[in-house]
Amino acid sequence: MRLGQRYVRDDRTLTHLCLVSRAFGAEAIYLEEVEKDIPATVREVNETWGGRFDVVVGEPAKKVMTKAKEEGRKIVHLTMYGLPLQEKVDEIRSADRILVVVGGPKVPGYVYHSADYNIAVTSQPHSEIAALAILLHEVQSGEELKRNFGKSRLRIVPSARGKRVVES
Amino acid sequence: MRLGQRYVRDDRTLTHLCLVSRAFGAEAIYLEEVEKDIPATVREVNETWGGRFDVVVGEPAKKVMTKAKEEGRKIVHLTMYGLPLQEKVDEIRSADRILVVVGGPKVPGYVYHSADYNIAVTSQPHSEIAALAILLHEVQSGEELKRNFGKSRLRIVPSARGKRVVES
Repeated sequence: MRLGQRYVRDDRTLTHLCLVSRAFGAEAIYLEEVEKDIPATVREVNETWGGRFDVVVGEPAKKVMTKAKEEGRKIVHLTMYGLPLQEKVDEIRSADRILVVVGGPKVPGYVYHSADYNIAVTSQPHSEIAALAILLHEVQSGEELKRNFGKSRLRIVPSARGKRVVES
Repeated sequence: MRLGQRYVRDDRTLTHLCLVSRAFGAEAIYLEEVEKDIPATVREVNETWGGRFDVVVGEPAKKVMTKAKEEGRKIVHLTMYGLPLQEKVDEIRSADRILVVVGGPKVPGYVYHSADYNIAVTSQPHSEIAALAILLHEVQSGEELKRNFGKSRLRIVPSARGKRVVES
């Protein structure tokens, strides 16, 4: 789940967050608000490249977190002020399912307190997109890189040079 | 090195690429063009949070790649069309120094051909910011997460809940 929305220019960041979540094997992303038609963009990516990744818009963050807890998910809030990922990753990995919360402009205090883990991917300022990618990568021990996206219109054939895309 | 520049809105992506490079231990980033004063933003981050990460603006990409080769660096070009990171990471890790090239709007053919490695972080469309983070993370076997940024004005004390920042 991504909290809040900074301003219009943020759409690009939101799109990156959606596509990273999808590519790294998340089931869905929850967005509090969007300006542009991000769900349509993601739908198009699913149709072209496979998978059933979902974008859910407008559910209040508190509700999403409560529901996640009821489903037995551990809540991982990414923040540069949190505990180092490398100290907690084994514990997080042992959870059956997780909800990852990525901050927006101002993160309300209840997020820090409701989260099972407040986790820092380095204690340096950088990018919620990078932090999310590293978390999903580490939690899945890199297995997400081998993920098969099933039925798709196009498929990339990895190559040492150039671009090979086939219809499938 | 980041190639090209899409449009003004891209500044945010560029800032993320700079801050991820810095936080994940790169020495410098080369940008072909910038609209906003990204070097000033990064300078401020260095002053506040430490380190000597450098932003070099305006050097032509070909020149940067030639110089990198002369310095004995291996060139790693990140592209969703490339070979899977997990198949090549051991080889890349064995290089003394690398130059990572991140695409912009349209990547010229010579980049694919001059690169020692064209590498995909999943064969799915997502984010150059995430791809860069995963590459730097894997090449350094996660050691970059423990990096010390030396003398800085502020320092975060990792905490399980809330925010602790101390002057140092």
